[in-house]
Amino acid sequence: MTAQKSAQIDKYTQFVSRGFGKDLAKRLGLPQPAILRRYSPGAPLVEGPVLVVGHTSGADSVASVLLSWGLDVRRHATPKEKLGAIVLVLDELAHPDQLSAPLLVAGASVRDLARNARVVSISREAIASDVPEMAAARNSIDGIVRSLAKELRAGATANGIVLANGTGAADPSPVSAMRFFLSGRSAFVDGQFLRASGEGSTELVDWDRPLKGRVAVVTGAARGIGAAIARTLARDGAQVIVVDVPGAGDHLASVANEIHGTALQLDITVTEAGARILDHATQRYGRLDIVVHNAGITRDKLLANMDASKWDSVIAVNISAQLRMNQAFLASSHFTTHPRIISVASTSGIAGNRGQTNYAASKAGVIGMVRSTAPLLAERGGTVNAVAPGFIETDMTAKIPFATREIARRLNSLQQGGRPSDVAEAIAYFASEASSGVSANVLRICGQNLVGA
Amino acid sequence: MTAQKSAQIDKYTQFVSRGFGKDLAKRLGLPQPAILRRYSPGAPLVEGPVLVVGHTSGADSVASVLLSWGLDVRRHATPKEKLGAIVLVLDELAHPDQLSAPLLVAGASVRDLARNARVVSISREAIASDVPEMAAARNSIDGIVRSLAKELRAGATANGIVLANGTGAADPSPVSAMRFFLSGRSAFVDGQFLRASGEGSTELVDWDRPLKGRVAVVTGAARGIGAAIARTLARDGAQVIVVDVPGAGDHLASVANEIHGTALQLDITVTEAGARILDHATQRYGRLDIVVHNAGITRDKLLANMDASKWDSVIAVNISAQLRMNQAFLASSHFTTHPRIISVASTSGIAGNRGQTNYAASKAGVIGMVRSTAPLLAERGGTVNAVAPGFIETDMTAKIPFATREIARRLNSLQQGGRPSDVAEAIAYFASEASSGVSANVLRICGQNLVGA
Repeated sequence: MTAQKSAQIDKYTQFVSRGFGKDLAKRLGLPQPAILRRYSPGAPLVEGPVLVVGHTSGADSVASVLLSWGLDVRRHATPKEKLGAIVLVLDELAHPDQLSAPLLVAGASVRDLARNARVVSISREAIASDVPEMAAARNSIDGIVRSLAKELRAGATANGIVLANGTGAADPSPVSAMRFFLSGRSAFVDGQFLRASGEGSTELVDWDRPLKGRVAVVTGAARGIGAAIARTLARDGAQVIVVDVPGAGDHLASVANEIHGTALQLDITVTEAGARILDHATQRYGRLDIVVHNAGITRDKLLANMDASKWDSVIAVNISAQLRMNQAFLASSHFTTHPRIISVASTSGIAGNRGQTNYAASKAGVIGMVRSTAPLLAERGGTVNAVAPGFIETDMTAKIPFATREIARRLNSLQQGGRPSDVAEAIAYFASEASSGVSANVLRICGQNLVGA
Repeated sequence: MTAQKSAQIDKYTQFVSRGFGKDLAKRLGLPQPAILRRYSPGAPLVEGPVLVVGHTSGADSVASVLLSWGLDVRRHATPKEKLGAIVLVLDELAHPDQLSAPLLVAGASVRDLARNARVVSISREAIASDVPEMAAARNSIDGIVRSLAKELRAGATANGIVLANGTGAADPSPVSAMRFFLSGRSAFVDGQFLRASGEGSTELVDWDRPLKGRVAVVTGAARGIGAAIARTLARDGAQVIVVDVPGAGDHLASVANEIHGTALQLDITVTEAGARILDHATQRYGRLDIVVHNAGITRDKLLANMDASKWDSVIAVNISAQLRMNQAFLASSHFTTHPRIISVASTSGIAGNRGQTNYAASKAGVIGMVRSTAPLLAERGGTVNAVAPGFIETDMTAKIPFATREIARRLNSLQQGGRPSDVAEAIAYFASEASSGVSANVLRICGQNLVGA
């Protein structure tokens, strides 16, 4: 979706952001969603100094990385100075009693956060074999970040990086995750965590063209989120093959032309779909590096009214086709250079949704698939992850009745729907070679949506 | 809380349940929460026949167990017959394509579910080493059950049991979990899962007095949820020690008298709290079997306004005290016979909550603690679990302003708040010797609350 189109669809956010509309919304106590800061190449990574909280050597290393990116780094808050971000490094917690000092320091600076600021925590994964005191301290960050995300205003978000055992706060993958969270690429990600191990390399990354020279395929790419993914991967340097059903041929060709990619008309549910994609990729580009499983359909019905055709078609397109294609990709010698698979799941697959037992089954299935495909990708130095979009503004959601749409849109901490580009940016992040240590993650792109679980 | 008091607090649910109020609510499109079926000794386990869906030997065994409980069991739906429950046995799924048949059978009977009916799935845990097809199929149940829970009406709920590797659908712990979900004990549990391994024994369980002869301690037991826990454990046959701060002495004594238990006035944050409880338990009863960490406080403030005393007191009471007491219990030779620890966490510890960074930290900490304490309990044949209450009607929530309270109450699939007894029933379930194969679980008691995550 173009920026212009998004603006048309969410006129409300524009209206209440300034002048008369802003006054009116304030008087009536209406939600006043912020206009989110989104990434564009060349824009500043964060808008304002970054306060690094924490006294460990990990915190020092993180500060050095931020300095190397040309950012204004503070190790102590300067009274009244507006901050672009707070990075909270808590990589050596051993007991919940140790939370107080750093959290009170961070808290004292929350009021100084600029619009669209970022809070990023860096902590360590709690595992069953930790001593209970350490596991408690480590897991407490989950509650803190999710609560803080609900407290922040004006487009600011709070997210966290969870380090695997043995990984340092300034190792390549955590650094790449931190950059994602600080940047406008994560505009609609709020209250979420990325688990990162130390692998990867940030030394050779061109942060504005991180996918340079990589070959990607995107299914369901003729319109909506799929087209946005194709555009974003191309913008980040990838050569992109866009796939969609023959019926969407014109739209597909237009997306392919726009991004200087190639189009492949294909029904992904046919047995040979994986082989067809591989043939196309190897003939045109010599190999395949990145697979984005975006194609998906909905056939909503209450389970009480469900019929076999609605159930089966959703399962066939949304999960069974991916499983079959992945088998083909994993068997191929052309999908071996830091390969990446990224699947588009859904918050419905995490929390369920009324009228979507079939869709939620398929998307929860995708999550199960991602977790058990990760070891297979790891064998060849690759990763597989999923994104789980919440309410994203598309032509499809534009057809939802006004009141229902307004409620669905506002029922998250950012009080607005996301854009297809927000989903695309997260996928591009996972696709990057700098994200080698990030696998089997399911990242919600939902503005911290209240969908239960 | 007594039934009378709950009724006063939620007059709305009563009002819209019959006569003029019911008509009015219907005309205005207001929520019409059902009056939930809650457990009382001697009441029928389910109200109506139970349809067992599934063609595996596990399904046959489950049907036998249900028959042995005197239930009316159906292996095929009888048209138009009202059902008390559907048990969906999917313990041999290998591919998402296998979901269609059993789900369509179940779906065709959803309309025949009686008020306060139950849907219980029994499936198998998806693990990273599964082949992707199997992991996808297994994990899809998560999306299905959570969606269906949002579709059911009139107090009906849908929950699931997830079998560990090697555990059969009719092994003792899954059977005990199934009984909990079918019964009125799980009235306010919706869209949730229990993971169960095969251990335990249901042969010797007196289902109406499952805690007979066991010695339990409940902290924070002078009022509210703690008092309800003490009453429920006593009703189920346990000898109960109620603990609270000296300031709550009168209330505490009255609870102790009511349940024929003993009272111990104790500040749980003192170093010797664990030893004091052990001394009391062994002197009066010779040992300690069940520990319920219920004591907890809130000191809500936005992190921007947080001070050290509010932060530290919440951490000290809600998590650090538990960690220290558990060390004492685990070092004792009097806490060794199928020991049970159950902690009261909170949905705030899972999803975060505005104004509760300190509280959410402590409750997320409890969840981390439970998971890493489980291996230590397992060494001595014990378990440790947590419950995570959502909006529960107490004297505390009765003080929330009307509009806020009404919204918080209705923002879940059952459109109402829970009762302290709902939390207590789940704790009694975890405390039972039949739940030996259920450890490191965090069970939400929240009516499938929309709190995000």
